[in-house]
Amino acid sequence: MNRPKRNEHNRESILAKGMELFNQQGYHGTGIKEILDACQVPKGSFYNYFDSKEQFAVEVLNYHHTQESAKWQHHFATTEGPRLQQIRAMLDSFVEDYKQDPDFCGCLLTNLMGEVGNLSESFRMVIQNSSDEVINCISEDLAIAQQQGDVRTDMSVAHMARLFWDSWQGALLRTKVSGSTQPLLETVDTLFTLFKATDGTRQENTA
Amino acid sequence: MNRPKRNEHNRESILAKGMELFNQQGYHGTGIKEILDACQVPKGSFYNYFDSKEQFAVEVLNYHHTQESAKWQHHFATTEGPRLQQIRAMLDSFVEDYKQDPDFCGCLLTNLMGEVGNLSESFRMVIQNSSDEVINCISEDLAIAQQQGDVRTDMSVAHMARLFWDSWQGALLRTKVSGSTQPLLETVDTLFTLFKATDGTRQENTA
Repeated sequence: MNRPKRNEHNRESILAKGMELFNQQGYHGTGIKEILDACQVPKGSFYNYFDSKEQFAVEVLNYHHTQESAKWQHHFATTEGPRLQQIRAMLDSFVEDYKQDPDFCGCLLTNLMGEVGNLSESFRMVIQNSSDEVINCISEDLAIAQQQGDVRTDMSVAHMARLFWDSWQGALLRTKVSGSTQPLLETVDTLFTLFKATDGTRQENTA
Repeated sequence: MNRPKRNEHNRESILAKGMELFNQQGYHGTGIKEILDACQVPKGSFYNYFDSKEQFAVEVLNYHHTQESAKWQHHFATTEGPRLQQIRAMLDSFVEDYKQDPDFCGCLLTNLMGEVGNLSESFRMVIQNSSDEVINCISEDLAIAQQQGDVRTDMSVAHMARLFWDSWQGALLRTKVSGSTQPLLETVDTLFTLFKATDGTRQENTA
């Protein structure tokens, strides 16, 4: 009766270690043996869980996306205040998370987009779906902030959300290279200045 | 007397092929043998030109940066009009270049930042220097456009230039994954809307 639980535990250990090592060393720079050795799982058992290295990496990206989405939902469920303040606090907490990594590896999704973003249809799909979901979440949050009078209404939230996502990714790359989270903080400041409502009643409290 | 020329030709062939294959397959996904086979240079001769794969990749990044900078300078030397129009035309021509690649691999610098941006001090330095130089060029161009009354003056050109670079890189990643240059064009449109001067006399002509 313990077997399925143990298998599930092994499977999750391999996914978590894959997430860590792919982020540190890239997809091609990380061997399956290295991942299995690090979680003390016998090499032969890998194919009990995954069909191939590529299919494994696709599952790692899904696993990463699920974790990031859960953080996002938890943040909005446990904080209060105008939506723009909540967004800012969430971004600050993401930046704090990145700071905990002494190598400043940044975000798995961003790092793998540049390396394997067009390598296969499976990679394209998982990355596209994750990106689209994040962009939709940003759009919805900006729409709420717009209704609250804190974000400009002369530009669509979809355009602002995609610019947000693009510039966050570029700032993550600069963070990785510079070993400092300053690029992320600065990019967020610049975007908040540009997206701020120029009329309305709330912006003085949330700027 | 032909020998130095031939060596120089081989060296440049290896750099050009390295630039192409690193962009398509990544740093770890590309073997030195594959590059040498593709340029029909004997494997043994690689170390006559380069100390290691890493030092070679650093030179490839420098080679790529030199080529991109030359395109940039050529564009401003051969076009006329207000600076903001010149910038827009240059970005459109970069987008056209990316379209010529059927795999939409995007930009070598962006792709390698995510994979090897913090792998060593040499990688950090070459990437940081290239990025800083591009950001400085964007700053200078935006400052000219500011003086010409086309760009807002209530935000520093340094902040706008870094946001520009970050969002261009994020859009390049989305272009790679989606197989469409639409993300680049849209990001540029959004930035131009946000950076546009809200007063002054020229913005109607350059929007």
